[in-house]
Amino acid sequence: MSAPQSARSTVRRAPHRADYDRGVIYEVLDSALYCHTGFVVDAQPYVIPTIHARVGDTLYIHGSPASRMLRVVRAGAPVCVTVTLLDGLVLARSAFHHSMNYRSVVVLGGGREVVDAEEKLAAFRALVERVVPGRWGRIRRPTTAEFARTQVLAVGLDESSAKIRTGPPVDDEDDYSLEVWAGVIPVEQHFGAPIDDPRLIEGLSPPSFP
Amino acid sequence: MSAPQSARSTVRRAPHRADYDRGVIYEVLDSALYCHTGFVVDAQPYVIPTIHARVGDTLYIHGSPASRMLRVVRAGAPVCVTVTLLDGLVLARSAFHHSMNYRSVVVLGGGREVVDAEEKLAAFRALVERVVPGRWGRIRRPTTAEFARTQVLAVGLDESSAKIRTGPPVDDEDDYSLEVWAGVIPVEQHFGAPIDDPRLIEGLSPPSFP
Repeated sequence: MSAPQSARSTVRRAPHRADYDRGVIYEVLDSALYCHTGFVVDAQPYVIPTIHARVGDTLYIHGSPASRMLRVVRAGAPVCVTVTLLDGLVLARSAFHHSMNYRSVVVLGGGREVVDAEEKLAAFRALVERVVPGRWGRIRRPTTAEFARTQVLAVGLDESSAKIRTGPPVDDEDDYSLEVWAGVIPVEQHFGAPIDDPRLIEGLSPPSFP
Repeated sequence: MSAPQSARSTVRRAPHRADYDRGVIYEVLDSALYCHTGFVVDAQPYVIPTIHARVGDTLYIHGSPASRMLRVVRAGAPVCVTVTLLDGLVLARSAFHHSMNYRSVVVLGGGREVVDAEEKLAAFRALVERVVPGRWGRIRRPTTAEFARTQVLAVGLDESSAKIRTGPPVDDEDDYSLEVWAGVIPVEQHFGAPIDDPRLIEGLSPPSFP
C-alpha cells in the first residue's frame, strides 16, 4: 500500500532514496521514540521535539509546546511531523561523498486537536504503551482534570513519505584507490540500566527493556 | 554569556527548564550528530534532518533538502534549527507525569546562503571534522565543481534557547505510595564496530571512535 503522493510530499532531493510504502512509513514511525513537529507562527517556523504514537493511519503527538502549537492548529494551520533514525556515519574517501545512513519519515498535513474523549484516551494509552508495553494497565490513569489539561494533536498519514539511506559510501571511481579508510560507523541506541526513583517503595522491579 | 531573549525565542512551556546560556547552547549543538531544520513553503512547514556544525556563533547546516530549503532562504524566509538529545525515558506512577529526559536547542533566525569561498570551505571542514576529528587532513578535498554544487546555510545563534530535563519523575504526592515501578530508563547512543567499505584497499584502519 502506498501513500498517495502529492506534489509537496514527493521527495525531491535524491528521489531514489524515497519510499511511499505505508508499511515502511509505519515501521520508521513506530521505531522512533520521539519526533520533531514543525508549525508556523507569524511566518516563523518552529520545530519542537514531542513524543508520538501511531494508531492505524493516524499519528498522535503530545509534548511540551502544546499551547503555542495548539493555538496554531486550532486556527487550521498545517503542520509537519518528522521522525529520523540515525543508523550510521558514512565516511567516504572525499569530503563531498560523506553522508549518513538514516531512516526518516516526513508527514505533512492539517493537524486536528483531539477532543473526542474516547479517541483522546486511546491516544494517551498508545503514547504510554508504545514506550513500555503493558504499562497502561499498571499506572494511575488520568484524572478528569489531567485529561482536560493535556492536549493531543492528530495528523493523518495521507501525505507522508519515507527516505532511507543504507550501505557503504559511494565514491567517485578515481577515489577508490586513495589510501583513506572508508566505510560505515554504525550508530546504535541502547537502553541503560534502569535508575530507581529515589522515593520508590521497596520490592518493585523495573520493566524489562530490549 | 546569555543569548538575548526575544519574545519568540523565550521558552513558554515549562520555562523552568529553559536555559539561555551560550555555553549550554554550544554544548548541546556540538553533542548532536544531526539537527532538524524547519522552513516554510506556501504556508506549509517542512522539517528535514540535516547535518550541522557550529563555528563560533554561527551554525552551518548542509543536507539533502538543499534545493527547496535554499530556494526559500534566498527569498529571505526565516528558519528554525532544532537539535534534540534524548537522555532517558521518565516513567512516573501516573500516565500524566510520564516524560522524557532530554537536552534540546531551538535556533530561530534568517538563514543565509554561504557564498564566500573561504567561509564555505571552513564550513565544509567543520562539518567533516566535528564527526571525525582529523579527517579533513586525510580525505580528498572538494573539487571546484563539487564546491559549487554543494550549498551551505548559515544561521546565527542570536535567537537561541536550550531546554533541558533531567532527574527522576515528579509524581503527585498521593501517588508515591502506589505499587508501580518509577524511575528513569537511560537512553544512550553508541558507535558500533566500523564496517569496512567492500572496496577498501588493504592495510587501512578505521578512525577510533569514543
